[in-house]
Amino acid sequence: MNQELLQTISFVVEIDKLKSILRQNAVIGKERRENDAEHSWHICVMAMVLWKYFDKHNANMLKVIKMLLIHDLVEIYSGDAFCYDDKACEGKKEREKEAAIKIFSFLPPDDREEMMSLWLEFDECVTLEARIAACMDRLQPFILNYHTQGFTWSKPGVTSEKVLKRNEILKELSPELWEYVLHAVNDSISKGYLKEK
Amino acid sequence: MNQELLQTISFVVEIDKLKSILRQNAVIGKERRENDAEHSWHICVMAMVLWKYFDKHNANMLKVIKMLLIHDLVEIYSGDAFCYDDKACEGKKEREKEAAIKIFSFLPPDDREEMMSLWLEFDECVTLEARIAACMDRLQPFILNYHTQGFTWSKPGVTSEKVLKRNEILKELSPELWEYVLHAVNDSISKGYLKEK
Repeated sequence: MNQELLQTISFVVEIDKLKSILRQNAVIGKERRENDAEHSWHICVMAMVLWKYFDKHNANMLKVIKMLLIHDLVEIYSGDAFCYDDKACEGKKEREKEAAIKIFSFLPPDDREEMMSLWLEFDECVTLEARIAACMDRLQPFILNYHTQGFTWSKPGVTSEKVLKRNEILKELSPELWEYVLHAVNDSISKGYLKEK
Repeated sequence: MNQELLQTISFVVEIDKLKSILRQNAVIGKERRENDAEHSWHICVMAMVLWKYFDKHNANMLKVIKMLLIHDLVEIYSGDAFCYDDKACEGKKEREKEAAIKIFSFLPPDDREEMMSLWLEFDECVTLEARIAACMDRLQPFILNYHTQGFTWSKPGVTSEKVLKRNEILKELSPELWEYVLHAVNDSISKGYLKEK
């Protein structure tokens, strides 16, 4: 047996754990929270069908999708920190960096490097592809919250200002998607899903 | 508001239902069945890390991943038919074709056509990209079954012959992955996870 292949299969087996990492938001119409594997799939399909709202930037779609597929693997070890909870997010960067080293060490050296480099690029959120990926990663829970009467937004400390701030990256990269966010935020305030301040 | 964008968002909302379509196999180390969204994510990451075992064919990775992301959307309406149950698979092709028309009709016309064409290509399993995608779609539940003491394989009518037959597409496209399948099948028989005949 090819030992490098067995190593890669051990990675395939290890990442199965992503299906048990629960997020803050819920699945639409269900009484249960979404997990990171479901979220990762959803944002990739979103990147495909919403690409036209970013295509003037001439970005590399494959790279965006690769980042989205692996961006949350670190949470297998570091867990999902609630983005509106500053205390839970303390030390997040360091914990996730350690987790990245751990999860990608299941792979043979070449793939380990490629994956780590993709993950770091996503995490730093500077390149065009990383920023488009971040847009999808923000917009998906936004849409789910809007369609679950503000499941996450009802938690303490969440206001429309904070939600807008979190989605602000869309403003620059895609005016149409930003317009949708503004529309949905206003509608959510008027329906009582989201506190204004 | 851009009406075409709202149409695309309605698709993003509708496909959330894929997270509630349960498959025959289980998640590793858990007492629950896997859903189609989790499966779709897993096979895309597998395509990334196992690509080297297909790369002599010079295929288009983005196309393979796009197919994998959307290939199971039809099951939102047609359900998951157990591949080793001939009766459950009767009329599957027609049911899935109708389901494809229904799910992609949520999209604006251009995207609808692109998605339908990708899905048909996957379903026909003739082009190189569709066949590589099929390899991932077969190998992933195989690996999960091997790591859950044959969760699906314990069902009536499943034998090593049928499992090998189902994974045979790997033989031609990737001798290394086929060797892994043979190794795991033999090991599963000896451990009692899979009946030989």
